[in-house]
Amino acid sequence: MKEQIPYKIYLDESELPKSWLNLRAFMDKKPAPLLNPKTLKPMTAEELSSIFCTELARQEVDDVTKYIEIPDEIRDFYKMYRPAPLIRAYCLEKELNTPAKIYYKFEGNNTSGSHKLNSAIAQAYYAKNQGLKGVTTETGAGQWGTALSMACSYFGLDCKVFMVKCSYEQKPFRREVMRTYGANVTPSPSPTTEVGKKILAEFPGTTGSLGCAISEAVEVASKTDGYRYALGSVLNQVLLHQSVIGLETKTALDKYGEKADIIIGCAGGGSNLGGLIAPFMVEKIKGERDYQIIAVEPASCPTLTRGKYAYDYCDTGKVCPLAKMYTLGSGYIPSSSHAGGLRYHGMTTTLSELYDQGLMQARAVEQTEVFKAAVQFARIEGILPAPESSHAIKVAIDEALKCKETGEEKTIVFGLTGTGYFDMYAYQKYNDGVMGDYIPTEEDLKKGFDGIPKINL
Amino acid sequence: MKEQIPYKIYLDESELPKSWLNLRAFMDKKPAPLLNPKTLKPMTAEELSSIFCTELARQEVDDVTKYIEIPDEIRDFYKMYRPAPLIRAYCLEKELNTPAKIYYKFEGNNTSGSHKLNSAIAQAYYAKNQGLKGVTTETGAGQWGTALSMACSYFGLDCKVFMVKCSYEQKPFRREVMRTYGANVTPSPSPTTEVGKKILAEFPGTTGSLGCAISEAVEVASKTDGYRYALGSVLNQVLLHQSVIGLETKTALDKYGEKADIIIGCAGGGSNLGGLIAPFMVEKIKGERDYQIIAVEPASCPTLTRGKYAYDYCDTGKVCPLAKMYTLGSGYIPSSSHAGGLRYHGMTTTLSELYDQGLMQARAVEQTEVFKAAVQFARIEGILPAPESSHAIKVAIDEALKCKETGEEKTIVFGLTGTGYFDMYAYQKYNDGVMGDYIPTEEDLKKGFDGIPKINL
Repeated sequence: MKEQIPYKIYLDESELPKSWLNLRAFMDKKPAPLLNPKTLKPMTAEELSSIFCTELARQEVDDVTKYIEIPDEIRDFYKMYRPAPLIRAYCLEKELNTPAKIYYKFEGNNTSGSHKLNSAIAQAYYAKNQGLKGVTTETGAGQWGTALSMACSYFGLDCKVFMVKCSYEQKPFRREVMRTYGANVTPSPSPTTEVGKKILAEFPGTTGSLGCAISEAVEVASKTDGYRYALGSVLNQVLLHQSVIGLETKTALDKYGEKADIIIGCAGGGSNLGGLIAPFMVEKIKGERDYQIIAVEPASCPTLTRGKYAYDYCDTGKVCPLAKMYTLGSGYIPSSSHAGGLRYHGMTTTLSELYDQGLMQARAVEQTEVFKAAVQFARIEGILPAPESSHAIKVAIDEALKCKETGEEKTIVFGLTGTGYFDMYAYQKYNDGVMGDYIPTEEDLKKGFDGIPKINL
Repeated sequence: MKEQIPYKIYLDESELPKSWLNLRAFMDKKPAPLLNPKTLKPMTAEELSSIFCTELARQEVDDVTKYIEIPDEIRDFYKMYRPAPLIRAYCLEKELNTPAKIYYKFEGNNTSGSHKLNSAIAQAYYAKNQGLKGVTTETGAGQWGTALSMACSYFGLDCKVFMVKCSYEQKPFRREVMRTYGANVTPSPSPTTEVGKKILAEFPGTTGSLGCAISEAVEVASKTDGYRYALGSVLNQVLLHQSVIGLETKTALDKYGEKADIIIGCAGGGSNLGGLIAPFMVEKIKGERDYQIIAVEPASCPTLTRGKYAYDYCDTGKVCPLAKMYTLGSGYIPSSSHAGGLRYHGMTTTLSELYDQGLMQARAVEQTEVFKAAVQFARIEGILPAPESSHAIKVAIDEALKCKETGEEKTIVFGLTGTGYFDMYAYQKYNDGVMGDYIPTEEDLKKGFDGIPKINL
């Protein structure tokens, strides 16, 4: 007899992955390399090591090593909050009256409130190991900044965070969590950097963007002795670290003989989705099993569904390497009416390439629909989701309702990346019925596209 | 060979307790009964059922049934967030360089952010079962109100919350979580009730107290058809429901052959501590094993350490039954400089009686020391604790440091009741170095004591 599947599948500590999975190493056609913005030649690990720690620069360009061992110090930290539970959404299934089985991998049970800690602790570890004094970074919704603050505090590193201004203002308590972990937090754009001054002069009153905050953080790292820059998404190294999400998810499903049919994740820069799908995509690439994989993005920042696949700047200040990715242009800033994270103009190169190859789908959803799904989920599953995560919830519910119509007993797995405790300002707007939707016009998008450099390789 | 103890001990779903433990049924000398404020006779279940649901009124007066079965509907809800982990504080032990072993039972991994949900779901279930329309309640720090909102939303009940005004103002996002779960939230004292109007007239500008919010909630419940009142602490029924904390803790320790020497919990009304110690106190009462049990309270609201053991009003408006308890007087309101919860003037009758019998100890701690311990803990254990929970952390660290001096390898277990995500206003004060301490003078206490009724039985 098949064992009854519990509400929450907790793996044992011994089942915590021992290695990260490097998805790119399994791809036949690799994602395009990062380019040096001056020479337009592929960036070497050596060149990247002026921005990132040496080991992280090495990971960034490695598209051949399939599994990379997780250092013991990082695994010890992981043990404080991992393995994360895979939860069977029994209550939601009942509420929707669907024949589908719904699972979600819950990454919010740690103080950073999201999956971001998985890469933050790795980046802090390598920085410490290299003898650095500290790191700089940007944060949008605040999850990454919190995660890196925690990780730096654990290893005794200094942490300087540039926080996108609209988040800084809407989420004063996020800032306070970072300060509690000893970080220095500056609203971006700020007058403390050259690029910040320039953007403030050009766009007074701007509410900021991730692309701009990245430029400021990179500038400070490059000008400060003993510092490097850390980024919470988009990069290959981040997807690598986030593969623990997918590896644990697969182990948990396998343990109960469950097979996913549909895998859904929200996608801003792509770190969560890239991590969640890693081992499943390997099976798909190898032709061992097919999965329907869906990236969900906000209609207000529709990188995959309406963006262009091209080499583009990763930051507004154009100081970072160029990446070939689906992009809305580095000058694109979603309307300030957009509540959640997922505001980045581009998509990690790996997911961009997989999407271009037709190995995954994308769907754009509007925020009022997202919050409606979030509240429904919170009330029935008891977890208050982050707005970002709620994009995946929305599409998971849509797919479960499709199964109700067709009678198909599909198994749906989605990533619940984090909790919404610091997003109550957005929930308040929704509760008060004053949340609007924003869909960029073709004209809005054109402005962003015009900033994409013309590079013929 | 002894199995290596993991960082987090997660019990299986099958190990979730099937019954609550009714600690009073094991006590030789029982806690004194609640008294009818008009007749000064012990309240019967029938009398109580005008305030509480019938089944909860029955539980309230039951001091003979040792184990009370947990209904399946409640266990199903518990499965969404229980069994809660018992965590070995390996990192904290290392940081303190202590020979002591430190464990904490972490009750914060649910959206209410605390252990309060354990009783909230039980109270909502019995209300639903009885065919009620809704419940009213008070909330101080906001954890209980959030928990009851979640529980009511799950069972489709209306929920009216009176929130102590200083919390309502300091924690707008707590209010928003409750609203997201469909609750109606009113700052207390409010002009919507007779007792609220009276208190506002007498003390204009008051920041409120739990005792006052209780009176308002009871008034509304008694005047509204199909409503009953629900309380998150102090009551016998609440301690009963919270016994799941202790039962799981003991099961987890037993599983690894561990024996607690010291058990520590914060104590406001006493629900968490009463639940945590339940099975251990049974062993202590039976003489099977001795435990050092420590209740930790704020120096600004020193109910056990400086209060009187007497019959007193449970609420400011004096509409509730009288309870024999350690009390500072129902008129006592801690200084508004006091940041956390644990502001209640009395202590649940069971713990009051156990304390009076010398079966447990109490310690009062100042809030700047508490926040210092909280930040130390957050940075090294990765969990941002609620201010209430941090009282227990402070004393756990003190005891671990004593062990360092003496070389004793004691096993310390404490209750980490919740997370501090909604307490960042208080953390900000601490981070900015502007948090003060408040210790009431004898004169301050005398004012409260003067309001304690003279009852000779």
